[in-house]
Amino acid sequence: MITKELLHPQSIVVVGASNNVHKPGGAILRNLISGGYQGELRAVNPKENEVQGIKSYSDVSEIPETDLAILAIPAGMCPATVETLARDKQVRAFIILSAGFGEETHEGALLEDAILETVNKYEASLIGPNCIGLMNTWHHSVFTKPIPLLNPKGVDLISSSGATAVFILESAVTKGLQFNSVWSVGNAKQIGVEDVLQYMDETFNPETDSKIKLIYIESIKDPDRLLIHASSLIRKGCRIAAIKSGSSESGSRAASSHTGAIASSDSAVEALFRKAGIVRCYSREELTTVGCIFTLPPLKGKNFAIVTHAGGPGVMLTDALSKGGLNVPKLEGELADELKGKLFPGAAVGNPIDILATGTPEHLGLTIDYCEEKFEEIDAILVIFGTPGLVSMFEAYDVLHQKMLTCKKPVFPVLPSLHTAGKEVDAFLKKGHVNFADEVTLGTALIRIMNVPQPAVKEIELFGVDIPHIRRIIDSIQDNGYIEPRLVQDLLRSAGIPVVEEFVSADKEEILAFARKCGFPVVAKVVGPIHKSDIGGVALNIKSEQHLALDFERMMKLPEVTAIMVQPMLKGTELFIGAKYEEKFGHVVLCGLGGIFVEVLKDVSSGLAPLSYEEAYSMIRSLKAYKIIQGTRGQKGVNEDKFAEIIVRLSTLLRFATEIKEMDINPLLATNKDVIAVDARIRIEK
Amino acid sequence: MITKELLHPQSIVVVGASNNVHKPGGAILRNLISGGYQGELRAVNPKENEVQGIKSYSDVSEIPETDLAILAIPAGMCPATVETLARDKQVRAFIILSAGFGEETHEGALLEDAILETVNKYEASLIGPNCIGLMNTWHHSVFTKPIPLLNPKGVDLISSSGATAVFILESAVTKGLQFNSVWSVGNAKQIGVEDVLQYMDETFNPETDSKIKLIYIESIKDPDRLLIHASSLIRKGCRIAAIKSGSSESGSRAASSHTGAIASSDSAVEALFRKAGIVRCYSREELTTVGCIFTLPPLKGKNFAIVTHAGGPGVMLTDALSKGGLNVPKLEGELADELKGKLFPGAAVGNPIDILATGTPEHLGLTIDYCEEKFEEIDAILVIFGTPGLVSMFEAYDVLHQKMLTCKKPVFPVLPSLHTAGKEVDAFLKKGHVNFADEVTLGTALIRIMNVPQPAVKEIELFGVDIPHIRRIIDSIQDNGYIEPRLVQDLLRSAGIPVVEEFVSADKEEILAFARKCGFPVVAKVVGPIHKSDIGGVALNIKSEQHLALDFERMMKLPEVTAIMVQPMLKGTELFIGAKYEEKFGHVVLCGLGGIFVEVLKDVSSGLAPLSYEEAYSMIRSLKAYKIIQGTRGQKGVNEDKFAEIIVRLSTLLRFATEIKEMDINPLLATNKDVIAVDARIRIEK
Repeated sequence: MITKELLHPQSIVVVGASNNVHKPGGAILRNLISGGYQGELRAVNPKENEVQGIKSYSDVSEIPETDLAILAIPAGMCPATVETLARDKQVRAFIILSAGFGEETHEGALLEDAILETVNKYEASLIGPNCIGLMNTWHHSVFTKPIPLLNPKGVDLISSSGATAVFILESAVTKGLQFNSVWSVGNAKQIGVEDVLQYMDETFNPETDSKIKLIYIESIKDPDRLLIHASSLIRKGCRIAAIKSGSSESGSRAASSHTGAIASSDSAVEALFRKAGIVRCYSREELTTVGCIFTLPPLKGKNFAIVTHAGGPGVMLTDALSKGGLNVPKLEGELADELKGKLFPGAAVGNPIDILATGTPEHLGLTIDYCEEKFEEIDAILVIFGTPGLVSMFEAYDVLHQKMLTCKKPVFPVLPSLHTAGKEVDAFLKKGHVNFADEVTLGTALIRIMNVPQPAVKEIELFGVDIPHIRRIIDSIQDNGYIEPRLVQDLLRSAGIPVVEEFVSADKEEILAFARKCGFPVVAKVVGPIHKSDIGGVALNIKSEQHLALDFERMMKLPEVTAIMVQPMLKGTELFIGAKYEEKFGHVVLCGLGGIFVEVLKDVSSGLAPLSYEEAYSMIRSLKAYKIIQGTRGQKGVNEDKFAEIIVRLSTLLRFATEIKEMDINPLLATNKDVIAVDARIRIEK
Repeated sequence: MITKELLHPQSIVVVGASNNVHKPGGAILRNLISGGYQGELRAVNPKENEVQGIKSYSDVSEIPETDLAILAIPAGMCPATVETLARDKQVRAFIILSAGFGEETHEGALLEDAILETVNKYEASLIGPNCIGLMNTWHHSVFTKPIPLLNPKGVDLISSSGATAVFILESAVTKGLQFNSVWSVGNAKQIGVEDVLQYMDETFNPETDSKIKLIYIESIKDPDRLLIHASSLIRKGCRIAAIKSGSSESGSRAASSHTGAIASSDSAVEALFRKAGIVRCYSREELTTVGCIFTLPPLKGKNFAIVTHAGGPGVMLTDALSKGGLNVPKLEGELADELKGKLFPGAAVGNPIDILATGTPEHLGLTIDYCEEKFEEIDAILVIFGTPGLVSMFEAYDVLHQKMLTCKKPVFPVLPSLHTAGKEVDAFLKKGHVNFADEVTLGTALIRIMNVPQPAVKEIELFGVDIPHIRRIIDSIQDNGYIEPRLVQDLLRSAGIPVVEEFVSADKEEILAFARKCGFPVVAKVVGPIHKSDIGGVALNIKSEQHLALDFERMMKLPEVTAIMVQPMLKGTELFIGAKYEEKFGHVVLCGLGGIFVEVLKDVSSGLAPLSYEEAYSMIRSLKAYKIIQGTRGQKGVNEDKFAEIIVRLSTLLRFATEIKEMDINPLLATNKDVIAVDARIRIEK
């Protein structure tokens, strides 16, 4: 529950306020005062009448009614204090800095429970416990430094780790990134990352609200809510980037040790972020770089002009962009020659545009003008402009500033001389700009952003999927485990997924009769064992009755075999679809080419069910082996539309059959006409 | 030619010296003075008697004999000035800052030629023209800022771009990286990057010389020399990292536009760096991060302990290391429990070791001690230690400093609070340390370093390769272009590469007789056309004489067909070896699995001929599809030793047949016993 008292309190009391700014209760009061808080500020400290010039009460029972209480007192004292404040003092927002709760001991968890009960009873907000606090443009209720510049158009940062938020701010302030709010949710007893996002979504005002959200999250507790509100915000014009740490096995162990949270499987996170349209980052540096990019106008295309007075960085940036599929198109012809004529001899305009070390601020402005107005193929302008220290950069950076105010195309400033032109860069940042000190770091972040799709549509594709029948089948199954081939076929057919004709029997004559009917060659497989091919339980390309009869007799003697299954032998490219149910996320659907592509090359892409056609195509096209699906020299491609259709339909089936914990269709045999499921396994757990 | 007058001049004259420090001739004099140059300093300026307090002469003819002359005068005046100084004033080293030479015009190039002739005649050194100069611990002969801390144990930086060197220094100084020398070679008329490396190699003194070299290079003019001296230096204990920019097609265009250099093909660069043992970087940030890592003791293994008081960054670093194949092993058992008992409740020791936000400097020291002395599985210690601003970090960073002095295992300091603990970080750097402000940037650089092999051995593997016979074949060929199949087979056999038996004829009866002899099934291919399969010129798995006779007749009617080639039909895994001659680099050899692996997945690895067995194995094992070579579920692997042998022998063949500009063996058919070349093409250009 996020109350107005939390966001815009008319009065704040710091319980445990101190004159010692080396303690949280002292530092937070200092930050509130130096942040120019405009409401009533109160302190509670049994030993002082005044703390840092603020009137201090010896006990919470003595204070007047207050909106927000910040607690910097031992954990054990918090429940009673919260009760008194909420009940007697109308406090409707709490920030509890103190540690010593559920993150440490069972007793601590019980204290948290008691606090939660109280705040919920009084419909109050609770941030923490075990957090650095909350700061926005109205009040700086954090005990940490640095305090970035705060600005209603700045970035919203939501972090599940306080120290990480602090270090993200360290990385942000040198880049000039400004903030609208910083949320450290700590143990997130009442308000977690998902809740903050939901609040921002539900109260979103496109005129006044910040449109950039940066997130650091260690454990996604409510993936659905994260998905809904992140994608909703993005549809409303916001841009979101997030670090979800604990993506490796060792990393998950680290995350667990840190927050007591169970890490979600990483492919589910990957799929969730893609579905929501969130830009996934892996470091503080990346997150703040992406945040800075988000402050500039969105990119409308992939064609960049690089404007510089130093060749090397331009070349490195060109390499980085090209490697990631972005273009630095060659500029030539009349307009390029015209520009070249206005620069010093030796200048290069082919792109990168090198105005030379001796190039003037006027040359810089002129070149930006050409990129903005005349080079129509250019979508964005990257300006790399440092100094070897001969002249001051104030004039050049002022030109850059002026151009950034008027250019419709985004202009990315790369000002590398943080040391030599420190003052000039500072002055530039003070005008509200950001700075990317390393051109390749910028290029890499641009690539990351360009590869993130729009949020997926919310509708489920129901056409051709017989949900009542699917439910009937699932409900009829008694036992957990892998289900019978007959039911697998029935489920797939109910979702409109073409399945190869097959026949199962332990009777040789029946098997032979079916083979005669469907025509040779056929395939025979044992029924019973899971890893059929390992035990010699699969015979391909059986061309005669005699051959089939022999294989039947051999296979029936293999261990655990209860029957034999026969199918016509199909030909085509092997495809693969798999799915796994991830607790809280739902089904992660994987697709790829079969065989070595999945097993050796791990060339699979993932999506979160239910999937739209757009998502299915995007999954297929992001495969490294996509060219094989398109058809490559000498080999016809496969019917991509049918492949996408099967992915979509399967994802719908799964959405209505969450009892399916694991499944794969392997192989799907695909030609340029048809895609047919040949073998599939489904494991159910109720 | 690098003279002692260049490196350690007893006297320096700045020609074109100025009181205006906004001009190169003023700035370089200021840098020399403020750098505390201990020799005689002179100025030449026709309008002044004294410049910046230094005696000024009105003409170079008036100065006393001098060791080093720095020229900051118009290009056109340089040749005569150099002549006078070298002839009359015994100047044996020149640094020419001025631009306006070969990089701009043909006339400028002629000026350069004249200067080169003079300096060579007098056996003098020449740095530039068109450069920022040279600085080392003795003299700061550069006109740019920043000036980093100079120290004989610091880093040597050699850059082919002056501005890039300046921006690399910007990125280095904030990390605390110190330098022994900085070389900006400019147009490199006499001394290029390769020459500096050669000099460092040939004069290397392991006791006194810096062991870290960082390079920025846009065009490798002499790959052989770079390879020889870089690998020699690395064998002597040096560590080298380099950016070779212009790796993309657009990037090459940018590099060309910048330096007028023709970019070398990137896979050749990749192969060269691997062979030399150079760590390849792609950004200034990466280069300086790798440089900082090089200042610490070398890593002896892949197991890292992460020590921190903030969970999040530890998790992100764990993720990054794990993704790159480095380990953050779980710490458990008696010793881990013992450490946990000495930290505050709630601390985690599983690795990352989280001593908590409240952890003290003593806790930090203790934990490092455990990692150094007790946790034997740990090879290196990563310490992430910032501050939310409550207490000063002097004490903690002093503990870190003390531990770094005594620990045998490398300790990597990640101090993120550059803003809040700026003074503390500065004080830490002043003690001679480096700092990695972002943990993931550090992790990524560590991975890059760990993946670089040792320099390759220098010997050529000659065993089994009949070089005289190879030369006889090559010398006998008259025409450029693809050579006859017969000669291809002969060449491969001369290198001891097994080749499938085959027979070429335009006579049906001869063809049928050969097939009878070698046994069916056979393969028939047309001789003449290049893209045989595209025109239906390949028939596989021909099982009978009758079938072969029909295919013979059909194929002989295809356009350009002069004969038919028949081979026994072999089975096995398709492998691929290709080679391309790159001007100045020699042959780049590529290997991979055949078919889609090469064509669609681009899964090839490259090496520079001649190749050692070690390099060949490393190439094979770096394939993404290496598991298929090893053998994967249900499928036997291929004979890796024979594959490596063929790669090595082919590379030897190529080294003695540089007329081969392009070739491939595609496919090589491989079983777990044999690897046999089935088809090959060789293009010769004399």
